[in-house]
Parts: sequence; structure tokens; C-alpha cells
Amino acid sequence: MADPIVISIDVMGGDNAPETVVEGVKLASEKQKDVFFLLFGDERRIAPVAKSKGLPESVYKIYHTDEIIKADEKPSAAVRYGRNSSMWKAIYAVRTGEAKAVVSAGNTGAFMAISKICLGTIAGVDRPALAAMMPTSKIGQPVVMLDLGANAECNATNLVEFSIMGSVFYHLLYKVKNPSVSLLNIGSEETKGREEIRQAALILKENKNKVNYSGFVEGFDINSGKTHVIVSDGFSGNVALKTIEGTARLVKNAFKKAIQSSWLAKIGFVLTMPTLLKLKKRMDPRLYNGAMFLGLNGISVKSHGGADALAYSYAVAVAIDLARHDLCEKIRVELEDLILTSDAIS
Amino acid sequence: MADPIVISIDVMGGDNAPETVVEGVKLASEKQKDVFFLLFGDERRIAPVAKSKGLPESVYKIYHTDEIIKADEKPSAAVRYGRNSSMWKAIYAVRTGEAKAVVSAGNTGAFMAISKICLGTIAGVDRPALAAMMPTSKIGQPVVMLDLGANAECNATNLVEFSIMGSVFYHLLYKVKNPSVSLLNIGSEETKGREEIRQAALILKENKNKVNYSGFVEGFDINSGKTHVIVSDGFSGNVALKTIEGTARLVKNAFKKAIQSSWLAKIGFVLTMPTLLKLKKRMDPRLYNGAMFLGLNGISVKSHGGADALAYSYAVAVAIDLARHDLCEKIRVELEDLILTSDAIS
Repeated sequence: MADPIVISIDVMGGDNAPETVVEGVKLASEKQKDVFFLLFGDERRIAPVAKSKGLPESVYKIYHTDEIIKADEKPSAAVRYGRNSSMWKAIYAVRTGEAKAVVSAGNTGAFMAISKICLGTIAGVDRPALAAMMPTSKIGQPVVMLDLGANAECNATNLVEFSIMGSVFYHLLYKVKNPSVSLLNIGSEETKGREEIRQAALILKENKNKVNYSGFVEGFDINSGKTHVIVSDGFSGNVALKTIEGTARLVKNAFKKAIQSSWLAKIGFVLTMPTLLKLKKRMDPRLYNGAMFLGLNGISVKSHGGADALAYSYAVAVAIDLARHDLCEKIRVELEDLILTSDAIS
Repeated sequence: MADPIVISIDVMGGDNAPETVVEGVKLASEKQKDVFFLLFGDERRIAPVAKSKGLPESVYKIYHTDEIIKADEKPSAAVRYGRNSSMWKAIYAVRTGEAKAVVSAGNTGAFMAISKICLGTIAGVDRPALAAMMPTSKIGQPVVMLDLGANAECNATNLVEFSIMGSVFYHLLYKVKNPSVSLLNIGSEETKGREEIRQAALILKENKNKVNYSGFVEGFDINSGKTHVIVSDGFSGNVALKTIEGTARLVKNAFKKAIQSSWLAKIGFVLTMPTLLKLKKRMDPRLYNGAMFLGLNGISVKSHGGADALAYSYAVAVAIDLARHDLCEKIRVELEDLILTSDAIS
């Protein structure tokens, strides 16, 4: 039997840590065999939870840490003073090679900054990027979007690197060969948008053998299923992601309020319920939990801070999947090739 | 009796022109008295439609033009060769003072470019911006967002100018004194986002007497009703606008499909229908038709290309309202004052 995949967990990060995190780890361990977890955090709190939730002793080991990086801590302060925190130690286990991937539901900025410091970027990557999955109107075909906020400004080279990393990421996660990659823009014509996007488009067109580049898409295409991977700078990506969240919330709340305003509607709603529950399940954001920090020498997965156990288990599953397929090495190889090619065209 | 407000209409612009446009003008003329319309376009097509739709002869005059700017025409070509088009002539009527405002459902890029050339920018405005209204979860409190795509890149001064113009615009449209103005960013902390946004925030804080600046908002706040006016560069604004459109479509289509998948759900749906229709009416994008090109020496309102008559009539109503309140003059005065103030602080 092969050695188990080792995943490092920042058990103290997240709104309902450590309980929810431990329960999430348990759910993940039930679905995936041959995985071993290093649990970083307050042993006095983790040990009883692990026992009460029934996490088998054979799948984990607790590494006690006294300190926690708070949700509102500034990343710069976390980097300076956080070396003894559960988050830092969990990430560091990937650096030493003890673990293959790390998962945290803690402070996003701190997690990104410490991941970058501890793991370093892959040779050839100028800037790492945050990538996440979302549902589309095509059932069974999610979309991956990056960058979602790690880099407020990006140049053409960054966007090209994101395209390659996103393509490799999509392929490993969803087993789609040559996923189509699009650049987010404000029009589909070649002359539209910002200079760096038009430049990135030119480089990608010259490298069709590396990335299945399929042109520009606009905001309304993010969830339409038109493309597999959408690349943008971190500012627009973050705006788009949060706008989707806000619009979904607006529609949901307006719908709820409308239904509650009439008895007839309430009865009707009960009849539609089973069907709507199915829909809700498919769109469930928990199934898409687990944003990946791409471009580092190590797999670093960010769970939503408010994730429940099920959502957390999906973030862990992403980490396991990427670790099994050796994501970082694959990105490194693809990027190395591209550098040669774009030297040739410049 | 005061002289009527004169509105110039590019009757040939839009997917269903001239029929829908004439019908929209008729709806608008029924709701607002003392308005006179200059209809620019092919007289042989417009005259019979105006007659058959019952547009009273006392409220319009047709100016015949032979040429049309096509929906897919490049703005640069439209500027060069479009001088005899219905769009150009309609805009030009505002320049000569014959009309107070112009409305078009035609090619957006061409309309922006020709409006800029014919009308010129208000003294003190570096870049005009495209502004539009959207519903929020607070009933009766829409949000105005700008820029929506006129400027892919913006500096701090542009963002400050947009804030002032947006504030004046909101005040005139919705009669809210000192509407709250926010900058779109990727976090609420002062250190977040791009340099130009942080700079704009500093200038706005120093000018609280001019603009009721209320800090940063994120994507999920666009439709939450947290603020009256949201300012961003044209790239992020365009992405956000289209993302809202896409998400709403995704939810609507998924909902429809789900309902159709079961008989029980179909029956339930019929019962909820009256309530959902009310909701649909409140969220109806037609009520928010009419994007305004702010910062020009003249009122230039863009209707959605696919607008039906009702939607078109709302765009016309926006133009009438702004013309009545002399929007451009008010923006000019506010901006002049601000320039003095920011000279003082720099």
C-alpha cells in the first residue's frame, strides 16, 4: 500500500473553530481513504472534540500550538508575530515536506502572506493568485476563476501565468483535457478593455499549444458555462465574486419576502419545495468551498471562514485531490515551457 | 405657460426601431405634459408609425435623415462617417440648444463618442462617465453606479469627479439630499485596493461638505441598499453590472427549469404566481432603463438596445427629469467649487 497523503490543518482558523474544522476533517476522512491529518492548534480543545466527533485515532496527530491568528489581524502583523500560531505551523509543515497540502479557514490575508513566505513561489511565477470554483448554468460544469484578490493590479505576464495555472488546476480537479481559458473583459472585440489584457490575449494566441485560449468573456458569462477558466486581475475578480454573492442574496431575500406576503403563495411554496431543495443543493456554495492559492511551492487551500463541517470537508477534498496529482510540479513544468515559447516570440 | 421641454430622439437606434421608439415616446408623452419631441430618422418610416400609434401631432416634429449608425459599427468609423445619421443629428440638436436632452437606443460606443464630440465636456471634468440605476433590497431606494464602461482606467481625480457627478445625479433623480457616496473596493479597510482608490478616498474625506462620502463598499454591497451612489473605474463597474445580469439570469433559468421538472412544483408555482409577478415588477429592469452619460455639456441618455416601449419610455422620463432640473449646470457648479477646495488641500 502507498504511503498516505498527509494534509496539514489549521484547526484554530475559522468562525466556528475548532469544532467545525474537526467535524469537517472527519467527513473528509470518511470519503477519502489513505489520508492522514496533522491537526495544528490547542490540544486541550482539539482532543476532546476529535474524540466526541469520532475521528479515528489512526488518521490524525495533534500538534499543540498556543497561539492563534485572529480574524481581524493585519497580514503584516501576522507575518511578524505569528510564527507560533496554528496557521503558521500548519503551513510550515508543507514547507518541511511533512505534509503535502495545508487547509485553513482563518484570516485570508494572513494565510496568503504566510503561505507566500513559508512556501515561496514556483520558479517562473511572478505573482501567485487565488482561484476558486463556482457553479454555472451547465450542470456538472463548474467554472474556475482567478485571481480573486491576491493582486489588485496585474500585468500581461501575470495574466498569462494565471491562465496556465488555471488551466492545469481545472484539468486536475475536473479531469477535463485542455479546458478553455478566457480573459475577463468589458467587450468581446479585440480593441476593448485595458492594454494588459489585450497584450495577454496576444501572448495566449501565440501559445495555443499550452493553453486552450478562447478569447474575451464579459461579466454575464462568468456563470453561463461558456468557458472553463476565467482569468482577471484580482480587483475585478474580487468585485465579480462578491457581486455574484450579493445578487444571489438579493434575489433570495426578495423571493422569501414575496412568498411570506401571501397565504396562497405560502401554500404554493410548500408544493414547489422538494424541487427547489434539489436546485438549492446543486447551487449550494458549500460544494464549491476551497479556494486555492496557485503559484506556490506547495498546496495551500483556503476555506470560507464561515464554512460548516460539510463545506470544510469540500475544501479538504480539494487539497487532497491536488496533492494526489502533484499540482505544483505540473504548474512548474507548464510554466517552464511557456517561458521558452514567449522568449521566442518577443 | 412655460415653454415645453424639448427632447431629441434618435428614432432609428435600437433593435426594434423605429416602431418601439415611437411607442416609447408616446408612453412618455402621456405621463409628462409640456414636453416636445424632435424625432430624427427616416420620415417615410416614422410618420406612419407615429400616426398608427396615435402620437399627437402637437408633441412632435420629424427631422428626416437618410443614414443610420449600425449596431456593430466601430465608434471611430461612426465619428468619421456618421454626420448625416439620425444619431448624430439628434445629439447635435442638444448642442445647438434646440433640444435640452437626447435619447438613443443605438450603438453605445458610437453614442458616447459622438456625444463627447458634439457636446464637449463640462469645464473641470477630465473624463465623462456612464451612470445607471439599479434596484436594491431596500424597496424604493435604488442605487446609482458609475462609471459603467466609458473609462477602462481611472485616476483618483476621475473617481472624485464621478463621486460629485453621481451625487448630483442621484439628488436630482430621487430627491435625496446629500446622498451617500461610496467607492467600490475589495475590502473595507483603508489599506485595501488600488492606490488611486485610496487617494480618491482621502480627497473625498477632505470634502465632506461637497459629497457625503461614506467609505469603501464591496461587490456584495452594490444591491444591498447600503449606499446611494457607488463609484468605480469603468472596467470594474462594467464587470459588476454584467455580473449582476448574469447571476440574475442563472438564478432565473435554474428556477424555471426546476419548476418544470415536476407536476407538483408546477401547481405550486401557479399559486405563488401573483406574488412573484409583483416581485418581478419591482425588480423589472425596464424601470431602470436609461443610462446617463455624465460630465458633458448636455444631457445624453442611453436606452438599452433591446428596450421595449415601456423601457424606452423610462429612459425618456430620465432625460426629461434631468433636463427640467438642469443637471449639467448643477454638476458644473459643484465641480467648480471642488476644484477650489482641493487646490487648498494639495
